[in-house]
Amino acid sequence: MKFCSECAGSISFRIPEDDDRDRYVCDDCGVIHYINPRVIVGCLPVYEDKVLLCKRAIEPRYGYWTLPAGFMENGETTEEGAARETWEEARARVSNQHLYRVFDVPYISQVYMFYRCTLDDGRFGVGPESLETALYSEQEIPWDDIAFPVVRETLKAFFEDRRRDDYPIAVKPIRFKRPPKTD
Amino acid sequence: MKFCSECAGSISFRIPEDDDRDRYVCDDCGVIHYINPRVIVGCLPVYEDKVLLCKRAIEPRYGYWTLPAGFMENGETTEEGAARETWEEARARVSNQHLYRVFDVPYISQVYMFYRCTLDDGRFGVGPESLETALYSEQEIPWDDIAFPVVRETLKAFFEDRRRDDYPIAVKPIRFKRPPKTD
Repeated sequence: MKFCSECAGSISFRIPEDDDRDRYVCDDCGVIHYINPRVIVGCLPVYEDKVLLCKRAIEPRYGYWTLPAGFMENGETTEEGAARETWEEARARVSNQHLYRVFDVPYISQVYMFYRCTLDDGRFGVGPESLETALYSEQEIPWDDIAFPVVRETLKAFFEDRRRDDYPIAVKPIRFKRPPKTD
Repeated sequence: MKFCSECAGSISFRIPEDDDRDRYVCDDCGVIHYINPRVIVGCLPVYEDKVLLCKRAIEPRYGYWTLPAGFMENGETTEEGAARETWEEARARVSNQHLYRVFDVPYISQVYMFYRCTLDDGRFGVGPESLETALYSEQEIPWDDIAFPVVRETLKAFFEDRRRDDYPIAVKPIRFKRPPKTD
């Protein structure tokens, strides 16, 4: 941030009065521009014994498989955002959504929220951010080509929990950046 | 947003190419400025049969009682943010944090996340954003002077759940703005 979005004045990165951390503050009009973490919402769509995955058509991790997920937008709930992303990336409608995994990723100031849900009628397609989409059983999942650790972990947990038919919600921090697996 | 924070150029609110909703786009450098929902993190600190509440020294709802909570900051987890806010507002340390309530408030693009936790040693003080702080049993809580519906609902659920010693996590949307009770 170089200029004030309210008055185009110059910006200092400093601790404002009555605060205890550096903020972007306008030298001219004094407005404080707060930068806050962003929420990524996604779904784990289930149909019979399979889950719906998307092969990414965008960076990062182009060509790797992921759950449908993306940045939460203003004016929607986390559940609505997760369903919207599932439509956008996999042209799939979902229902019966249950919060399943929350991942805090403080080093990039993101919070991931994944909803376990039913893939309606087992129907899906391919959205513009996906190269392809597919339903995979536990044995079929391309475990070595999963895009992100949070996705691999969510999938592993789901198949474990399914054996007991009990799906407790878990919150977990991801503390260190792991380099992507490149084989 | 009136000016681009990267180049001080003028801003249009329009749908960018390959997008489907209005964004703040710089007419000069083309940068898209995304505005995303914010996360509010808070604690429900418990000591013996009582919970810790703070009387607000700031607007909105000055003088009304709330749980310690505030905007999540960059670089922290939701759990850390909730504990930080509890220190800032009530000079209290907490442990044994468990996610308890998630409220989606889409009309103001906010997500609330409350952690049920233990108030360490029953010790607390008064932070700069509080007029006073106090431990209240269910019978003592000033129910008519609670600052926000999400706080009242979280407290009601907690005392209900405590009778069964079972605290399931719940996610709930708050759909319409209710006018504050003024009495």
